Amino acid sequence: MGELRRDPIVGRWVIVDTDHPANPKDFHYEQNAYKGGVCPFCYGNEGMTPPEIECFREQGTSANSSGWQVRVVANKFPALQIEGNLDRRPLGLYDMSNGVGAHEVIIESPYHAKDIPDLLPHEIENYIKMCRNRAVDLAKDKRFKYLMFFRNFGSAAGASLEHAHTQVVALPMVPKNVAEEITGAKSYFDYKERCIFCDMIRQETQEKDRVVLENKFFLSFCPFVSRFPFEIWIMPKKHNAYLRSISDEEVGYLAEILKETIAKVKNVFPNVAYNYIIHVAPINGETDVEYYHWHIEFMPKLTQVAGFEWGTGFYIDPITPEQSAKYLKGGL
Amino acid sequence: MGELRRDPIVGRWVIVDTDHPANPKDFHYEQNAYKGGVCPFCYGNEGMTPPEIECFREQGTSANSSGWQVRVVANKFPALQIEGNLDRRPLGLYDMSNGVGAHEVIIESPYHAKDIPDLLPHEIENYIKMCRNRAVDLAKDKRFKYLMFFRNFGSAAGASLEHAHTQVVALPMVPKNVAEEITGAKSYFDYKERCIFCDMIRQETQEKDRVVLENKFFLSFCPFVSRFPFEIWIMPKKHNAYLRSISDEEVGYLAEILKETIAKVKNVFPNVAYNYIIHVAPINGETDVEYYHWHIEFMPKLTQVAGFEWGTGFYIDPITPEQSAKYLKGGL
Repeated sequence: MGELRRDPIVGRWVIVDTDHPANPKDFHYEQNAYKGGVCPFCYGNEGMTPPEIECFREQGTSANSSGWQVRVVANKFPALQIEGNLDRRPLGLYDMSNGVGAHEVIIESPYHAKDIPDLLPHEIENYIKMCRNRAVDLAKDKRFKYLMFFRNFGSAAGASLEHAHTQVVALPMVPKNVAEEITGAKSYFDYKERCIFCDMIRQETQEKDRVVLENKFFLSFCPFVSRFPFEIWIMPKKHNAYLRSISDEEVGYLAEILKETIAKVKNVFPNVAYNYIIHVAPINGETDVEYYHWHIEFMPKLTQVAGFEWGTGFYIDPITPEQSAKYLKGGL
Repeated sequence: MGELRRDPIVGRWVIVDTDHPANPKDFHYEQNAYKGGVCPFCYGNEGMTPPEIECFREQGTSANSSGWQVRVVANKFPALQIEGNLDRRPLGLYDMSNGVGAHEVIIESPYHAKDIPDLLPHEIENYIKMCRNRAVDLAKDKRFKYLMFFRNFGSAAGASLEHAHTQVVALPMVPKNVAEEITGAKSYFDYKERCIFCDMIRQETQEKDRVVLENKFFLSFCPFVSRFPFEIWIMPKKHNAYLRSISDEEVGYLAEILKETIAKVKNVFPNVAYNYIIHVAPINGETDVEYYHWHIEFMPKLTQVAGFEWGTGFYIDPITPEQSAKYLKGGL
């Protein structure tokens, strides 16, 4: 069938079909369709959500009314609750604690049926600035060890509401997948005294065949060890462990590459559902993280994860990232 | 929302909704429906598959013809290929090798629309004995380090063919998820000089509220740190690292608990799709594995895995395993 590839950060193996790579036409995915109906995230329905935590709005408009561009509210069905203490305790050989944390929703725009590629550049910039604001604000709570920003777009990607939104969860512990990334990146740094993500950017910009887009501050590419067909990582070229410390100039370039990358995917796969996750270093620990580099991992929902992947953590990618990049750039 | 629970083996955290646990009626899952059509796994169509590798068949019938009960063939679209050497090599900072391994399909019965609960006890026993045979046979190839048996039932669980079947993949390296389980189980053993799975069986049979079924040799229970609603583990009570070394008497009891456990799930969720994975210790390494205990992890396909789970490895279980077990036992 082809090749086994090993992720240099977490040690995950992926089987890549280099012999008979799939064609975009081979993927039969569930297309995202807006059903409409009354939406709590829409302009005019501000009273249907919990009160806003933070908002970019027109001067002279009042909180929880119309006139906003980006709006942050608490998740109505939070996975974790802001009150209380962790209280870690055993139950026989098991371990448990209270579900303390924060769970917010960033409503990216007042328009029901607009995804990121449909927004204007300054609208996407406002959305990114709001993510930055929330990252700064939530990090003030010393109980939190990690902030996870993620976006489920389309019901096939797990979105329960159609209106585009990003979620942020503040966690009282560093989650397992992040801890593994940190450990892997740290052991590379300990050995080489260089950031593995910075080296990855060097190699990708040299080899070029996995690069999708590049601008002054960012690179978007299909990773050499893609778990999923058409997986894309967006990475800042300048070393930085946190999204929260990007400059306003960088925000503009991030908005551009995010918009264009998603547009390219939707060009090949109309109305595809997708997830993206913003990977950053843990908070409220070390301040000068040299070995970790924040980035976005984007995964279109084209295949099912089944028993093999669950059992092994091994993934099967039916197309090479090199070819995915070619299709995205329109070269195939 | 509730409680955070930490898996004592791999350190994974799960958010369990103890406050407002879901009801089985809250899950809107895709029901599995047989569409029929020409099936290469059906009685009479033996010529449509690659030639059989091993088969239980009536005396006097010849290979690749009718008259069989359980049939093993090579996967027509193998993820890995049996020929060749691994040839591990670098590509800049990345690592790769050839896709060497084995990928077989165990066709559990000649009947198109029969799932395990629909089979007779001796038919399920034959299926388990065939898994045992394949485990013994594949372990003879010293290039293989791990054997993963798994079953995707229903298209929502990733099955590409309707006719029930189990897959086995022989891997040239121990996959990441297994390596983590091993590391966790080993550090418990190093500290306590006891197998963590044996201790888990002790605690579960004492506390009883997560137990679904129990017989002379096996226990089926909803794990304290369930990633998914109605997740169930089936575990041998006697310490044993490998499925391949179970006795014929144990095979009978395993067939019984497997049949009844799946029947109980299907009783609550008619025609639900599901995956199960048989977790065993690595092969062709240590022979006397005291710290690891083979078991089956069963996961009905009731929810979507979305950005949060992908990013963190943190799972959200909308129902407690204690309540899942009650529903399965018919007590709610």
